Amino acid sequence: MIMAKLTALVTIAAIFYTFVLSARVGALRVKTGVAAPATSGDPIFERAFRVHMNTVEQLVMFLPVLWLSVQVIGDAWTGLIGVVWLAGRIFYASGYMKNPTKRGPGMLITLSATLALVIVTIVGIVRGFLAM
Amino acid sequence: MIMAKLTALVTIAAIFYTFVLSARVGALRVKTGVAAPATSGDPIFERAFRVHMNTVEQLVMFLPVLWLSVQVIGDAWTGLIGVVWLAGRIFYASGYMKNPTKRGPGMLITLSATLALVIVTIVGIVRGFLAM
Amino acid sequence: MIMAKLTALVTIAAIFYTFVLSARVGALRVKTGVAAPATSGDPIFERAFRVHMNTVEQLVMFLPVLWLSVQVIGDAWTGLIGVVWLAGRIFYASGYMKNPTKRGPGMLITLSATLALVIVTIVGIVRGFLAM
Repeated sequence: MIMAKLTALVTIAAIFYTFVLSARVGALRVKTGVAAPATSGDPIFERAFRVHMNTVEQLVMFLPVLWLSVQVIGDAWTGLIGVVWLAGRIFYASGYMKNPTKRGPGMLITLSATLALVIVTIVGIVRGFLAM
Repeated sequence: MIMAKLTALVTIAAIFYTFVLSARVGALRVKTGVAAPATSGDPIFERAFRVHMNTVEQLVMFLPVLWLSVQVIGDAWTGLIGVVWLAGRIFYASGYMKNPTKRGPGMLITLSATLALVIVTIVGIVRGFLAM
Repeated sequence: MIMAKLTALVTIAAIFYTFVLSARVGALRVKTGVAAPATSGDPIFERAFRVHMNTVEQLVMFLPVLWLSVQVIGDAWTGLIGVVWLAGRIFYASGYMKNPTKRGPGMLITLSATLALVIVTIVGIVRGFLAM
């Protein structure tokens, strides 16, 4: 049984979304003729490739603080911040695919959610020290 | 003491294998003359580089669901699915190095193992909701 | 409340440092004119890009064994090894930015810290088996 249900659900959703972005890269290899191991040669492929890679980079910062935060503010609030992160990622991907210059707002939402989780974790660490 | 011994062992093995793939990239830099920070210029180097990078991408999806699954189906079953993931990665790397078009089967095994862990996690989340 | 305070602190620091490296990549896009989605075209940008990417690759190997080790040797020792890892990363980045050939020593420190955590984890797994 998993107790932190919403946090686990957000984790699954974030991983699934990352997979969807990687599957799009694979599909665009076929469509644009950018054969592996190349990672450039077509502007749309390159956008999709960077969107996926950037999401992986964000995911590895997000998941650890997500699971530290759940110990501080519980499952519901942590899950809520996770949903904001995911919305930021979807917004980022959609903006980037239209035009790489439009990737800013989604990135800001993503980073704000991660920052919120970092602050929550720091609060939990401080509380841990105070309880010593 | 670590209770989820097999899951921890698979985690160590997956991380070690990822390290081996990165060490090969480093060795091929010397052998092929593709000096850092370049990441292209020799077909064999490029394959090794992509194999490592792709394994990092898969690892960040795999480890979170691996450690969620152990809470649902226990250490032995989780470890077993982890071994399948690892076998898929080794198969993927070996196929890709021979010919990038031969990377499909190993990738499918990897993704099947990750998908199995995702399904197990979802079962655990549903059980968590039912126990409320 | 977070019990493994120092380990959590190192986790936050490692994630924050990875973010700082990605922010530098973003700033160098503006300064050097390497517009997204391109990832090459200027030697300094390419170094910063590779430093960030390599740190992400190291982070995904580091964090899992960090949190397995805390179950074996406790928070203080785990946090200490984490600080070594972080120092290795800062040393690596600073060497690489001066000259890519100077990235070796920092990388060795990073890998030594990760290896120490892997050994600690294996000790914990063996203890788990012995306690069965």
